[in-house]
Amino acid sequence: MKVSEVMTQNPIRVSRKTSAAEVARLMERENVGSVLVVTENDELLGIITERMLVLEVVARDRLPSDVKAEEIMWESAISVPPEMDINKAAVLLEELEIRYLPVIEKGKVVGILSVSDLAGLLSNLVDCVFAELKYRRKKRLDRD
Amino acid sequence: MKVSEVMTQNPIRVSRKTSAAEVARLMERENVGSVLVVTENDELLGIITERMLVLEVVARDRLPSDVKAEEIMWESAISVPPEMDINKAAVLLEELEIRYLPVIEKGKVVGILSVSDLAGLLSNLVDCVFAELKYRRKKRLDRD
Repeated sequence: MKVSEVMTQNPIRVSRKTSAAEVARLMERENVGSVLVVTENDELLGIITERMLVLEVVARDRLPSDVKAEEIMWESAISVPPEMDINKAAVLLEELEIRYLPVIEKGKVVGILSVSDLAGLLSNLVDCVFAELKYRRKKRLDRD
Repeated sequence: MKVSEVMTQNPIRVSRKTSAAEVARLMERENVGSVLVVTENDELLGIITERMLVLEVVARDRLPSDVKAEEIMWESAISVPPEMDINKAAVLLEELEIRYLPVIEKGKVVGILSVSDLAGLLSNLVDCVFAELKYRRKKRLDRD
């Protein structure tokens, strides 16, 4: 299974000059926990998560409208290609202890893969494994 | 299995007058995503999560040191007793679409149960189920 089959498409994007207050309003309106900071050509500059807003704006006691996205974004955000195997991406999320992976194709942002996306996948897999286990048990009981 | 066996003990607590800036610094220092707001007698008043700081402080463009815990906390936080069955607590977290459940005993805060605590438990259970499946397969192969 590929990253492109699990990722969230059209992630919320902001420019480097967008204020932290506007970023938070977008997170509220779109009900997401992260936004990507991009150039006019949709090239990835960085990522801003809820936690970064808490640490870089609230903990530093800054007025949110005075803070620009470029000041608080994490610039060295690791990105992955849409055709990457989902298991490899999951290992990356775990090893880097991050919750989001931007997905980039031909230099442009095409999606974002989050731990929540993986949780949805896991939930389906668990249902599937348990249905199989129940089926096997039923077959055993029918046989006995 | 009981909630008390999985919960995080001694959760971070603040008073109703603690500022949002101080709450955020505590979240940073203690590496947690929520704090409980309590009275002097450790009675639960409410809960503050990272998301509440983002929505109530950053999105409203407020200066963090001007905002008090009591203004942004979620007062109607559902709490559970430490002896509650962990499966029931998990259903509660899912149905209420929340990430944290304060744990209360004799009117006082004794812990907090988070989705992360459950994820740790799930990881152990998955390892256990897969070890069992591998063992069964090996037995079948040895038999053939």
